[in-house]
Amino acid sequence: MSALPAVLLDALRARFGERCATSEAVRLQHGRDESSFAPVPPDAVVFAQSTDDVAATVTLCHRHRVPVIAFGTGTSLEGHLHAVRGGISLDLSGMNRVLAVRAGDLDASVEAGVTRKQLNASLRDTGLFFPIDPGADASLGGMAATRASGTNAVRYGTMRESVLGMTVVLADGRVIRTGSRAKKSSAGYDLTRLMIGSEGTLGIITELTVRLYPLPEAISSAVCAFPSIAAAVDSVIETIQIGVPVARIELLDALAIRAINRHSKTSLREAPTLFFEFHGSPAGVTEQARTVQEIAAGHGGMDFEWADKPEDRSRLWQARHDAYYACLGLRPGARSLTTDVCVPISRLADCIAETVADIEKSRLVAPLLGHVGDGNFHLLLLADPDSTGEIERAHAFSQRLVERAIGMEGTCTGEHGVGRGKRKYLELEHGVAALDVMRTIKRALDPDDILNPGKVLPDLP
Amino acid sequence: MSALPAVLLDALRARFGERCATSEAVRLQHGRDESSFAPVPPDAVVFAQSTDDVAATVTLCHRHRVPVIAFGTGTSLEGHLHAVRGGISLDLSGMNRVLAVRAGDLDASVEAGVTRKQLNASLRDTGLFFPIDPGADASLGGMAATRASGTNAVRYGTMRESVLGMTVVLADGRVIRTGSRAKKSSAGYDLTRLMIGSEGTLGIITELTVRLYPLPEAISSAVCAFPSIAAAVDSVIETIQIGVPVARIELLDALAIRAINRHSKTSLREAPTLFFEFHGSPAGVTEQARTVQEIAAGHGGMDFEWADKPEDRSRLWQARHDAYYACLGLRPGARSLTTDVCVPISRLADCIAETVADIEKSRLVAPLLGHVGDGNFHLLLLADPDSTGEIERAHAFSQRLVERAIGMEGTCTGEHGVGRGKRKYLELEHGVAALDVMRTIKRALDPDDILNPGKVLPDLP
Repeated sequence: MSALPAVLLDALRARFGERCATSEAVRLQHGRDESSFAPVPPDAVVFAQSTDDVAATVTLCHRHRVPVIAFGTGTSLEGHLHAVRGGISLDLSGMNRVLAVRAGDLDASVEAGVTRKQLNASLRDTGLFFPIDPGADASLGGMAATRASGTNAVRYGTMRESVLGMTVVLADGRVIRTGSRAKKSSAGYDLTRLMIGSEGTLGIITELTVRLYPLPEAISSAVCAFPSIAAAVDSVIETIQIGVPVARIELLDALAIRAINRHSKTSLREAPTLFFEFHGSPAGVTEQARTVQEIAAGHGGMDFEWADKPEDRSRLWQARHDAYYACLGLRPGARSLTTDVCVPISRLADCIAETVADIEKSRLVAPLLGHVGDGNFHLLLLADPDSTGEIERAHAFSQRLVERAIGMEGTCTGEHGVGRGKRKYLELEHGVAALDVMRTIKRALDPDDILNPGKVLPDLP
Repeated sequence: MSALPAVLLDALRARFGERCATSEAVRLQHGRDESSFAPVPPDAVVFAQSTDDVAATVTLCHRHRVPVIAFGTGTSLEGHLHAVRGGISLDLSGMNRVLAVRAGDLDASVEAGVTRKQLNASLRDTGLFFPIDPGADASLGGMAATRASGTNAVRYGTMRESVLGMTVVLADGRVIRTGSRAKKSSAGYDLTRLMIGSEGTLGIITELTVRLYPLPEAISSAVCAFPSIAAAVDSVIETIQIGVPVARIELLDALAIRAINRHSKTSLREAPTLFFEFHGSPAGVTEQARTVQEIAAGHGGMDFEWADKPEDRSRLWQARHDAYYACLGLRPGARSLTTDVCVPISRLADCIAETVADIEKSRLVAPLLGHVGDGNFHLLLLADPDSTGEIERAHAFSQRLVERAIGMEGTCTGEHGVGRGKRKYLELEHGVAALDVMRTIKRALDPDDILNPGKVLPDLP
């Protein structure tokens, strides 16, 4: 453990007692996420139970210029919560109260540690749901901090569109409220959106008010295999371009399907496969599914299956739900470096085609899964951690992929965030001057650089 | 004309020739908007034709610490473009090129002076449209700068949701690009959303990439009168709460309808009236209209009319389109002070009821029209400019209305922006600390306060 000022640790222990922990096990748990980076534990962990707890901790850290890193569920993918300059991990998972559900306004207020599944469980019987689904059962504070999205974003948007307002603790311990409960406002600078995606570097989100949606009257699912990735992607593009209000469109490549067959003992056709979900009225979802079936048929789609009973829908989508862990299982012991580019949909076919060729040339094992309705796709680069050559090839591939996506007017990260892993690409993506504006804002709001230092913005050369 | 440094004026004339104007007529035209404030002309007007022109002008103004105010179409409603501290008005209306329409990506890139009608005209034959409609044929740069929205926002969102990226000139003349053409991104701070709604105080928007939508396959309109405002509003609330994806829901009160009858020689029932528009498939819009008709009937709705042919839809909506000028015509010679609060929809009925009672008590002539699907409504306070008492009563009423809306967790401005008129309410709405964060950002990005000074943020006491 590095050098925390004793006076700070004493003050934290005086206030938090056993809720301030320095045991190696607790520190290690808070220095590890789901990225491919080696863990970097904090010097101590504070378990917050309220905005006041967060404000008190940040005030103390501010006084002693010690880094403070918000921790939700530890499911980030780019080393967001690594204590690269030491300091305090502020664990918000105990802030897990649903503060209000206002069915009439289609919104809910929650503490930052509430997870998306917990929120949806608490919405049972209201006829409403919270649609943003990044896969992991992440905390809503963490999802806002990384501007998360996932499978439903093609219809319901991302955390950027889903948060009405927040309570945020600033770098000096002051507490602000951003936004309001009005559905729209032109009253001043958009601090809500400034905090969303700032990954705990501009403030620590402690409460959020999020938008909810009526549960669709009808849901229908469909699955369809294709002769090629290009045929699948062309079907996606056509679906989006004619405006079918599809709720989810997910692509798995043949390798991902093979991984699932192995993992789940299924016998799916090992071909690029699209998974669809439609939300609407009974007539509406039927209409959507029919339209998509026609589009798919026009691109050589095979084995089109379509279901609207919950158990049948679950069966159809099971493969997609199992995909991540099934893919990890392709190479036991391998570390996954997960890519996350997103491009304009007109470039998606080209981007995937060039990328698939690059995978082959790079001799990598890399199943593909994608939220292709948004132009966003992931590769799980499964590399042997003991093979320097393989790890290097994976990193070089990842860099080429990012450059390809940015060259196509896309982004290095569609939904995972920058963390440690994507900092080096921000200048290429945004340019020197825009990056300088981000630095100016960071310096203005956190002059001592105590809020999650070493994340988002690249170090100055 | 106040004191512009001669060296600045010489430099501007050297660069811009006749595109730098100081005639009284041109200055006056650029110092006037559609607000109730008396005009405040700039010292000179520069007509920009490119981002380079804007950057050159701002660089010069920065050097001489002279204010610079972006001007689009002059249709703002809160004195946004008034040169309250003198300086240069930078007219962007000549930057009116549609740079690219990418039908495949459902986006378009335009210069900031392109108006929404111009963009939609250029989309003819693409099957796409740009939905944001604030009423006036405003420039897209101005709409982004004020975070505008209007009648379609209930379905398509506001400028906040509609801009993918922008080119922005900073206070020191540097040019940045924000965002990308990817539909979503988690790559760094959201400079796009920071600039949207900043009203030219953090940067000058010179180009934008905006989202487009497929023209709906079918459009249907409906109009329905109600026995009371409460009945109409309750119908709106029910429609939103059950998730009917209505494209527009507009409310006019009985006085507004009376104004229209007078102005357009119609004989509509002089009762609170809702105007609906539905977008979707032919079956979908029929379903939506039926659902809404049932809801309206449950609240005493009368004279429900429904149309799907373009000419019949136009006839049904004509009253709504004529409303603004018809209402102004209620009291010829009166000045209109237009309010713009927005509240959570569950509070809309209460907010309107208390407000209507207040209008009566205040002896004001104030027709109501509202984008009620979002909880946003306007009153046109028609006051005799020669009656100090009436103007004072209108201002006192407006203040009570804002306080009422903020007390209901709403906002002082749903879509018009802060400008000069709403600055005094920002502290009440956001609190001291959040307002201080806005000031910190402004100081960091525009330390000399040359970008549209005296707007958005209240002066320090």
